[in-house]
Amino acid sequence: MNDVLDRWAEEGGRRGAMRRILRALKSTGDFWEVVALSEETVPEVARAIDFLGSEGLVAVEDDVIKWKVDISGELDAIPDNLCPRCGGRGVLPRAYVGLVDRFVKIARGRPGVKRDYDQASMNAESVWARVAFIEMRDSLKGSRILIIGDDDLTSIALGLTGKPERITVVEIDPELTAFIEGVAERESLPIETVTLDIREPLPEDLKRSFDVFSTEPSETLDALKVFVGRGISALKGEGASGYVGLTRREASLPKWQAFERMLLDDFSVVITDVVRNFTEYTHWGYFEETRAFSLTPVRTLPKRPWYHSYLIRFELLDTSRGFEEVYTEDFYSDEESSTT
Amino acid sequence: MNDVLDRWAEEGGRRGAMRRILRALKSTGDFWEVVALSEETVPEVARAIDFLGSEGLVAVEDDVIKWKVDISGELDAIPDNLCPRCGGRGVLPRAYVGLVDRFVKIARGRPGVKRDYDQASMNAESVWARVAFIEMRDSLKGSRILIIGDDDLTSIALGLTGKPERITVVEIDPELTAFIEGVAERESLPIETVTLDIREPLPEDLKRSFDVFSTEPSETLDALKVFVGRGISALKGEGASGYVGLTRREASLPKWQAFERMLLDDFSVVITDVVRNFTEYTHWGYFEETRAFSLTPVRTLPKRPWYHSYLIRFELLDTSRGFEEVYTEDFYSDEESSTT
Repeated sequence: MNDVLDRWAEEGGRRGAMRRILRALKSTGDFWEVVALSEETVPEVARAIDFLGSEGLVAVEDDVIKWKVDISGELDAIPDNLCPRCGGRGVLPRAYVGLVDRFVKIARGRPGVKRDYDQASMNAESVWARVAFIEMRDSLKGSRILIIGDDDLTSIALGLTGKPERITVVEIDPELTAFIEGVAERESLPIETVTLDIREPLPEDLKRSFDVFSTEPSETLDALKVFVGRGISALKGEGASGYVGLTRREASLPKWQAFERMLLDDFSVVITDVVRNFTEYTHWGYFEETRAFSLTPVRTLPKRPWYHSYLIRFELLDTSRGFEEVYTEDFYSDEESSTT
Repeated sequence: MNDVLDRWAEEGGRRGAMRRILRALKSTGDFWEVVALSEETVPEVARAIDFLGSEGLVAVEDDVIKWKVDISGELDAIPDNLCPRCGGRGVLPRAYVGLVDRFVKIARGRPGVKRDYDQASMNAESVWARVAFIEMRDSLKGSRILIIGDDDLTSIALGLTGKPERITVVEIDPELTAFIEGVAERESLPIETVTLDIREPLPEDLKRSFDVFSTEPSETLDALKVFVGRGISALKGEGASGYVGLTRREASLPKWQAFERMLLDDFSVVITDVVRNFTEYTHWGYFEETRAFSLTPVRTLPKRPWYHSYLIRFELLDTSRGFEEVYTEDFYSDEESSTT
């Protein structure tokens, strides 16, 4: 195995990535499951399967990746040690069980996800787990909460708890803001929406006014800077906090490191939580048009949920600062992105 | 409430800390529970109770903190949304249920914890959850694992799985290394021990040789640098990983930020997981002699477990580097530490 890892490293691959992919291949020949288990990006896994093929170690047959020479013997398979009760999230929205059904019914009316805005939605279980997670760390009662991009309708779930003083949704898609406004009116939820391309700075009256913000940003470094930096600039200051979803599906560990340095050094916040695969996404309508699908060595669609994001929480200290400049570039794609 | 927060901030306090302490006081008047719920350090909570007392808002009566004027109305209490099955850890050591009893029996024979070495042990559930957590991220099979400081006997749990190739324990306490050596021999576990003060550099043959290291360090910044930096210098390089326990009980968020910057900027690793209160500590023998006990406004001992650490995992990239210099100062105490 070590000589294979050496040749992979010579071609610029990470050994850690290849070891995880080899471990994943011990349990499954399904490309999407390998991505989910190995936690490497779609392009990286595609490249690794290609590399292992060129080494004569695996072959893709009938859309399944099969070992020709199994070199994974020195590693063990990745076990499923996740808690079946909470799905590994560690929290349950106990107080809100009755609200989840109501939320699901409301969410059924939402407009379809749009590729132009890099939309995809998390499932209802993930939305409510996030509510439960937030309220253990930050007071919902009396709080002002900002949601940047609300494909997931997190604003509605938070509103249904009856606790926040005001929830503000900043969202680029006018069809989505109109839907949220309609729900807010019918259900008497304290939600206001602002239809805005987040590349524009926030309106002055949203700056330094929130206790909490939450976002599942696009995952290029520039998009992360803009989504998260804008969120920080909207927070009241020391003691306020941000919740950010970040995947391993479209962000490699070197990109994670760059993002963490951005948080620590540029924004001067402190990371308090990083929870693996907290958020599970439902399949999105335009999947067969994505780069992810074109990159795979197989022609089958994912059979099970394979797209998750980590939940990262950070808190502001006295020295924290956000990002308030105009940003004009397209920031939805880089070489690691695949589902835009 | 806001004017109280302002005066607290004028005295150098963090608003985030005070808000969490006020939220905790909504549920409990027990000092130790306030520390556990608010996640602030023992000295900070003691200072906050003192401040609230001087403002005439709380008083300590019969060892219980009582509201005189409850200003917490604008906040909600901190709910217990933890998953009851996994205790919020998100993982269960399913494959090892049969081994936990054997581990507990073995651990009963361990020498008592020693204040001179800042010792305290995590409970068996936490040890085995850590094993389950590690093996989802790093192959145990065929691995070389380094444990720096093994009050918790993690080496024995890892050895009982039968998977690692070799486990090396670096530990200052000769009585503990002798105990672990004895168990390893009786149980035929692939554990070796090195009795060493970690302020000394590691022996050359331990450098660049491990896939994984794990430690629950003392929590001054210098101790963190030495424990974690030595661990990194013992890892093979890119793709290898470190597991570090860090509390909020003895490390404030500003210290957390300094530690995270150390990880990102000085050691150039990437943080992949930060799991709240993953590890629960059992009470330690010398508790009534600690600064924590002397600082409290109450004379009662903790009734329930109150001392937890977060589990932080990081992974090495190509640019990562450890700490190999000699360190000669005493590093067990700073103004935030209280249980040494």
